[in-house]
Amino acid sequence: MAAPMNRQWRLAAFPVGMAKTSDFEWRKEPIPVPGDGQVLVRNIYLSLDPTNRVWCNDFDTYMPSVRIGEVMRGLTLGVVEQSRSPNLTKGDFVMGLLGWQDFTVADGASLSRLEKIQPLTGYMGLFNPLIGLTAYVGMLDIAKPKAGETMVISGAAGAVGSVAGQIGKIKGCRVVGIAGSDEKCRWATDTLGFDAAINYNTENVLECLQTLCPNGIDIIWENVGGDVFNAELALINMNARIVLCGMISQYNATAPVAGPSNLIMVLIKRAMIKGFICIDHMDRYEAAMTDLARWQAEGQIKYRVDMVNGLENAPEAVNKLFDASNTNQGKLFVKVSAEP
Amino acid sequence: MAAPMNRQWRLAAFPVGMAKTSDFEWRKEPIPVPGDGQVLVRNIYLSLDPTNRVWCNDFDTYMPSVRIGEVMRGLTLGVVEQSRSPNLTKGDFVMGLLGWQDFTVADGASLSRLEKIQPLTGYMGLFNPLIGLTAYVGMLDIAKPKAGETMVISGAAGAVGSVAGQIGKIKGCRVVGIAGSDEKCRWATDTLGFDAAINYNTENVLECLQTLCPNGIDIIWENVGGDVFNAELALINMNARIVLCGMISQYNATAPVAGPSNLIMVLIKRAMIKGFICIDHMDRYEAAMTDLARWQAEGQIKYRVDMVNGLENAPEAVNKLFDASNTNQGKLFVKVSAEP
Repeated sequence: MAAPMNRQWRLAAFPVGMAKTSDFEWRKEPIPVPGDGQVLVRNIYLSLDPTNRVWCNDFDTYMPSVRIGEVMRGLTLGVVEQSRSPNLTKGDFVMGLLGWQDFTVADGASLSRLEKIQPLTGYMGLFNPLIGLTAYVGMLDIAKPKAGETMVISGAAGAVGSVAGQIGKIKGCRVVGIAGSDEKCRWATDTLGFDAAINYNTENVLECLQTLCPNGIDIIWENVGGDVFNAELALINMNARIVLCGMISQYNATAPVAGPSNLIMVLIKRAMIKGFICIDHMDRYEAAMTDLARWQAEGQIKYRVDMVNGLENAPEAVNKLFDASNTNQGKLFVKVSAEP
Repeated sequence: MAAPMNRQWRLAAFPVGMAKTSDFEWRKEPIPVPGDGQVLVRNIYLSLDPTNRVWCNDFDTYMPSVRIGEVMRGLTLGVVEQSRSPNLTKGDFVMGLLGWQDFTVADGASLSRLEKIQPLTGYMGLFNPLIGLTAYVGMLDIAKPKAGETMVISGAAGAVGSVAGQIGKIKGCRVVGIAGSDEKCRWATDTLGFDAAINYNTENVLECLQTLCPNGIDIIWENVGGDVFNAELALINMNARIVLCGMISQYNATAPVAGPSNLIMVLIKRAMIKGFICIDHMDRYEAAMTDLARWQAEGQIKYRVDMVNGLENAPEAVNKLFDASNTNQGKLFVKVSAEP
C-alpha cells in the first residue's frame, strides 16, 4: 500500500472569467514534516468564499495575489496531528489560511486552539473571520443600525448577508433582503425573520424596493454591486450608511463594469460608502464570536451549510458561489477529511 | 421718472440639460415693504454656483427644488435699506439665500450682520458657506489630511477646489490638481502652490496621475465625477478618504450617467466615500471663517473672482460654470447693484 500523500490544488493559471479546473494543478506530495516550533495540521473542512476568486487574480487586492505554482489560499479547520510547538497539542483544533490541501505545516504561534464547538461545521458556517466577524464588524462598527431604520441586504441568503440581516433584526431594523431564487427569499423571510425579500432574477428590484421600503433606505449592505446596488442607491435616506462588503457580480468580469449611475445620491443624501475587510478588524474577533454564540444559542442567529465532499472537487465547487441558477444553499465548504 | 422696481428672475421651466434663459422669467415688481421684524435688503452681489443648476431640477436634492414661478434661489450679499428688526440697522451688510432679484424682504432674525471686510467681493470668493465652509469642513472634518499624504483635487481651479487644495498644502500634503485648461493648471501650480496640475482636456489623466502620484492617492476631493473620478479611483491607497463634494459633470445630464467602474477599489482598499453639504455644518462656520481669514492674511489662501455685470445676465452667466471651453476664471458672481 502506497504511503499517504498530501494532495494539493496549486494555482496553474490566473483565471479569465469563472475559474476552470484547469486553472489549478492537482498535485500529490509527501506529507510535510514540522520543524521546531511548527505543527502539522490535517485539514478537515475547507471554506469556499467569493474572495477566493479575487485572490487568484494577477494583481493584489485585499491580500496579495496567489502566485502561479503556489498552493491555493483558503480558510480551513483542521486538527493538529504533530506538534513541535509549546502552543498546541496533538488533537487540538485550529483554523487558518492553511490552503487547498490535505496537510499543512504552520508555525504553532500563528494558530490558536479552538474550543471544540458542536457541530464543528459551525466554524465554517458562522464562527470564523470571513463570515461572523465580517457581518458583526460591518453591521455594528460601520452601519451602526438604530431601531426603526430600514436596511437592505443584497446577497441576503449568502453566508455573510444572512448573518448581517439577522443582526439588523436583533437591532430592531426593518430588513429587506435581495437574493437570486424564490427558495433563498423564502429562507430569508420564513427562517431568518427578514421582513421581506426580493428575487432579483424574477422581480423588478427598484419597484419592489419602492413598495417594501416606504420610509426609504437607511443602511445598504452591499455584497453584489451592479444593477441591484444602483436600485438601492435610488432610495437612500439622508445620512445613509452603505457597507461595501463585496461586489460579487464583478469578480469574474473580464472587462470594466460600469459603476452605479445613482452614485450621485451619495452626494445628495450626504451618505457614506465604506469598504472594509474582516482581517483589519481582528481586535473585534473575540467580542464577535462571544455575541454570535449567544445569539445563536438564543435562536436569534441561524445559518445553514452546503458541504461538498472531497478536496478533488474544490475548483468546480467554488463556482457554485457565482452560479446564476442560484442553487447553492448555505455556507459552501469542502469536506477534506473525516472529523476525529 | 418711473418708480424703481424690483427686478427678478423667476423659474419658468425646469431646465433640460443646460439651463436656457427661457427657463427663467424676467419680472419687475414693486419693491416689497418689510413687516414687523423684517428688513428690506438691496442685493449687491449674487453668487453663481454649480448647485444652482441642481436646485432647479423637478425633484428635491440637497435642498427642496425651486418650484415654477418662484424667484430663483441664490446666495447674495446685500445691504439693509430698511429695518423693522431689532437685529439689524440700515446700512448693515448681510448674506443669505435672498434670490435672483434686486431687493428681498427677510426676517431680521434669520440674518447676521457681517463685518465689512474689504474687498466686499471676498464674501463671494471665499468667505461664505458655499465656498469657504465647504472647503474647510470637507478637508478638515472629512478628509483629515496628514502631512506627507497625496491629495488629488478635481475642479482644482474652481472656487471650492482651489481653497480645498490650498488647505491641503497648509496641512503638508502633496496636492495634484485636475482642471480644464492650461491657464487653470498654471494658476493652480504657480499662484496657489499646488505641486502639479493636469489638464483633463488635453492629457491622459490616468497616465499623468500614475506619474505625479508615485505613492498613490490618499485623498480624493471630487467635484466632477465621470472619467476623471474613475482614473483617480484606480490609484487610491489603503484607507483612502474620498470627499464627494460635487459631480458637476452630471448636473446637466439628460440621461443616467454610468458610475465609475473602479468603484470596486473602494472595497479593495477599505476606502470611504463621504458625501456632504455645507449647510449641515453651520456649527463650524465661525471657526472656518476665522481660520480662512488668518490664512488669507498670511498669503496661504488665495482666490480670484469673475464678476459679471447686471442681474439681467444671470441665466446666461450661470452656464459659464459648465462651459466646456473652460474660460471662466475664479469665483463667478453677478454684480446686481453698486456697493454703498
